[in-house]
Formats: sequence, structure tokens, C-alpha cells
Amino acid sequence: MTVIYNRVALIGLGLIASSMFWAMKRAGVAGEVTGYARSPETRATAREIGLCDTICDTAVEACKDADLVVLCVPVGAMGAVAAEIAPVLKAGAVVSDVGSVKRAVIEAVAPHLPDGVHFVPAHPLAGTEQSGPTSGFAELFDNRWCLLTPEAVDKTAVADLRAFWEALGAKVDEMEVEHHDLVLAVTSHTPHLIAYTMVGVADDLGRVTDSEVVNFSAAGFRDFTRIAASDPTMWRDVFLNNKEATLEILGRFTEELFALQRAIRQGDGDHLHDYFTRTRAIRRGIIEAGQDTDAPNFGRTKQT
Amino acid sequence: MTVIYNRVALIGLGLIASSMFWAMKRAGVAGEVTGYARSPETRATAREIGLCDTICDTAVEACKDADLVVLCVPVGAMGAVAAEIAPVLKAGAVVSDVGSVKRAVIEAVAPHLPDGVHFVPAHPLAGTEQSGPTSGFAELFDNRWCLLTPEAVDKTAVADLRAFWEALGAKVDEMEVEHHDLVLAVTSHTPHLIAYTMVGVADDLGRVTDSEVVNFSAAGFRDFTRIAASDPTMWRDVFLNNKEATLEILGRFTEELFALQRAIRQGDGDHLHDYFTRTRAIRRGIIEAGQDTDAPNFGRTKQT
Repeated sequence: MTVIYNRVALIGLGLIASSMFWAMKRAGVAGEVTGYARSPETRATAREIGLCDTICDTAVEACKDADLVVLCVPVGAMGAVAAEIAPVLKAGAVVSDVGSVKRAVIEAVAPHLPDGVHFVPAHPLAGTEQSGPTSGFAELFDNRWCLLTPEAVDKTAVADLRAFWEALGAKVDEMEVEHHDLVLAVTSHTPHLIAYTMVGVADDLGRVTDSEVVNFSAAGFRDFTRIAASDPTMWRDVFLNNKEATLEILGRFTEELFALQRAIRQGDGDHLHDYFTRTRAIRRGIIEAGQDTDAPNFGRTKQT
Repeated sequence: MTVIYNRVALIGLGLIASSMFWAMKRAGVAGEVTGYARSPETRATAREIGLCDTICDTAVEACKDADLVVLCVPVGAMGAVAAEIAPVLKAGAVVSDVGSVKRAVIEAVAPHLPDGVHFVPAHPLAGTEQSGPTSGFAELFDNRWCLLTPEAVDKTAVADLRAFWEALGAKVDEMEVEHHDLVLAVTSHTPHLIAYTMVGVADDLGRVTDSEVVNFSAAGFRDFTRIAASDPTMWRDVFLNNKEATLEILGRFTEELFALQRAIRQGDGDHLHDYFTRTRAIRRGIIEAGQDTDAPNFGRTKQT
């Protein structure tokens, strides 16, 4: 594999950045990789486990001479980081990010970037419920999508970033910014909010003890708790920064839920059965599209 | 392992019954196992794959001389099956079931059973999104809970059924009937309804295509589609037969969701962050209680 960027800077060292580092090493697409995290503990951990070739004590230092800078901080922190590093970005450098929302990130980051720096926003659709610098692994992006949402930017910069993500194992597509934020509100943001809510309800219910919730959680609820164990700061920022689309999808969700609730109250079994049969088809589509496995028990090993 | 029941009859041959059969064989706790399913295709498949020692063409035939009869049909079909088999049940036999709701099953089944037959309702908290006679495997119940909800029944009959489920790999607990239905409404029934709803919303949204939903589904949504791919008949019957508890939990869920929705609309990041931090604790409890794995990526193999 040929080197695409001689020097890559990763700002923020959580699950995504650490996985990017190991995937870059696997692919050999980066010369030197520098890293920075705000927390001294995270930087110490990164140095211990050999994450990045060099861990710097400031974002500015990490970004000096970088050909590619990837902002891997929570969406709400992107603007401040961009303002801080802007003065040292070299002409022709590519700045990208991994944020789960795109319009808000573009509005926060773009105004700070000097002319001659190419901003290519990106969103790798990959993750686990783990977070932090030790949670990354090289295979995280394999066969997952990475969406680029470039607007009026140099075509070579986009082509290079596409080749970079493909080398990390991802399938790459381009998408219009607002459409990205709507699609993700449906497929990721709203489902996460709902999972958080259900876990909170369980915890609040006085007549059911936490240990009963824990011991007698069926597969459905276990999956919700996994989702709801995701990084709180990341998700707070997602909802605050994709407000409009999330609220729209929540409105539709509530409508549908009320219709099913009424069917239960009225004992309308046909309505329920039809609805549940229809949702099976989407599942089949996901398996056929190769986005998941059809192995039983949610693809887990049978003995856990 | 010693034989607990000389003759066991499984009525209904889906995921649970087929897993019970393989687990009984593994444990050696049953002499002969007979099986019956309403559909001739299911009976043919069961015979082909060696499911049960004998597949009978009527439920009555399968239940003759049985020491244990387990009703493994959807909750809505339990009453009719009980009425049909009641005349041939032998004195001292144990009748049990595997239904996800208990009060409705007891009301449907108990009136049909003759004196001298012991009814011990049971609910193994185990499953996958697969269904049908080929979906079972011996390990399904290993380390999962099986809840018994006996009411005024012979203590030996309860003790035998407990030993039987323990031999199949499960941990067994007894629970009061109404409490069972409330706990399960929280940990299983409502989460399933919510997952079904979210998948339906995605499918309905005109501006986002099915293929976008399929291709760009993040982990959260993929889990929802797995849940929503579960057997429609089983789940219809669950909601119709655990109406009161499900509607109560749905009401609480809607309240909480509206509070989070308002926090998003008002940009109240602290409220969101606090809520998301709290839900992490329940997740840790579930891992510590041994009900799930803390392996990353939802315990799946990294490459799917």
C-alpha cells in the first residue's frame, strides 16, 4: 500500500481515533502519525500502549506540518479545536473530522480554516459501546460505510480522503450535508435516544428493582442497555447539534407508537401482526446488504 | 444425569421447543420426547432433522402417557391447546408452558385441566430473533433465567420442574404472577414494541430510501431491526395478553421521552448528559450479573 499522507494528526484519542491509528498501521497509508488528547491521563495511556508515533502535549504541536488533520473530538468541541489549530495548518493540508452530524460541524469549523486548507467532512459509520484510547482496533471500519460531505472543495483532496478511508477498510460514499443529518437521525440518533429513555424508565420504576431489571432482562432490553452505555458527551453533542432532524423523527416515532398503543388498548391483533410482519422485511434487507450477520442470538457466541 | 420425566410432550415446535429438545438430549433428563406442531410442514421438517423421538400428528396423541407436557405455542393459542389435550392427561402429570406472559396463560389454561394434573407455568428468558423448528440449539438456556409462577400447586411438581430447567442449563427463580408480567413489560415487551415502531418509522419516511436505511444503519438501528425481526404472531399475542402492564410502561416511557425531547429543543445539554451518564450504570450492573458480555462491538465477532 502506498502512503497517501506523509503526516497525519489525530486530535482526540477515543474509540474512533485509536481505531484509525491501528487501521493506518495495518494499511501503511500514513508516514508519521501524531496524536493529541486534552486529558493528560489519556495522553499517558496513549504513550503506554503505543498509540500514535508521537503523542504531543498541545493540539498545535500535533498539527504542525500535518498533511491530514482529523478532528476526533465530540461534535460540540470541534469549533474550539479548529480555532486553536488554524494558525499552524500548512497550505494544501486536508482537514477532516469524524463527527456524527455534519451541518453543525461545518458551521463550527469552516470559518476558522485559512485559505488553501481543504476541509472534507467525514463520518465513519462504525463504533461500539466502548470508548477511550484503549478501545480501538484495526478492524473497526472494515466493510462499514464512511460518508463524505464535501462542499465546494478541491476534487483531489476529496479523492485522497476517499482513498485513505478505503485503505482503512471502509466503503466510501458522498452525501449532501442536510440529507446526511436526516438519514442519521433515522438510523442512529433517534434509536439511541429511545434506548436511553427506556433504560431510564426501567431504573425509575419503584416496583421493579434494579437487580430484577438486571437479572431478568431479555435480549431486547440487553441491546438497549448496550446502546445506552455509549459515551454521554458524544451523544449529548449529537442531539444538541442535530436538533431539527432528531425532533422531526421523534415526532413521527411518537405518532406511530401511539397508533400501536391504541391497537393494544383496543385489542386489534391484525394491526399489530401486520406491522410486525412488515418490519421483518427491512431486517432481511440489512442482512442482504451485508451490513450485518444473520447468525442467531444476535451474532454473538452462544455461550456468554 | 438422572431421568426426571419418563415421557415429555412438546406442543408447538418453534425456537424454544426445539432448543428444549436438544438441551434435554444433552442432559439426559427425559426418557422419550414426543412432539406435535399444527403445521404439517413443521412436522415434516422436525422428522427430517430428528427433532423429538416421535413426532405425532395430533396433540392428543403426543400427550398420551406424558409425565410432562410443555405448551410451546403462542400465548393466544394456549387455551385451545389445553382444552384439546385435557381429556388424555394422566393423573399426576405436570403441565407447563413457556409463554412470555403468565396471568393470561393461567386464565386460559387452568380451567381446562383435570384434577390431579399439576400446572406449573414457566417462562425461560431466552431467545434469538430466529424462529421455527430448525432454529433451536442445546445451549440456548445456559446461564439464562427461567421464571416459574406456580400458584397453589403440589410442591414436588414445582421442585421437579425446577430440577428439569436447571438440567437444561437455566438458573431458576419463582415469581408472583402479576409481578412477572410487570417486570417483563419493562425488560422485554415494551422494548420490543419500541424497536418495532422505530423500524416502521424508518420504512415510512419518504425522503430516506430503504436502501439508505439499510446501508447506513449504525449499530443502534441494526439492533432494533434484529429485535423487530422476531416472530410476529408471538409478539402480537404478548401485547394483547399483557395489555395493562405494557400500557403502563409505555405511558412512563412517553413521559421520559418528552422530557428528553424538550431538553433537546431547549438546548439543555446538562440534562442530556446527566441522563446518559445514569443509564451507563445499569449496563455495568447487567455485565456484573453475568447476563451479558462486555466484549466490544456488542459481543459480535469483529468481522461480520
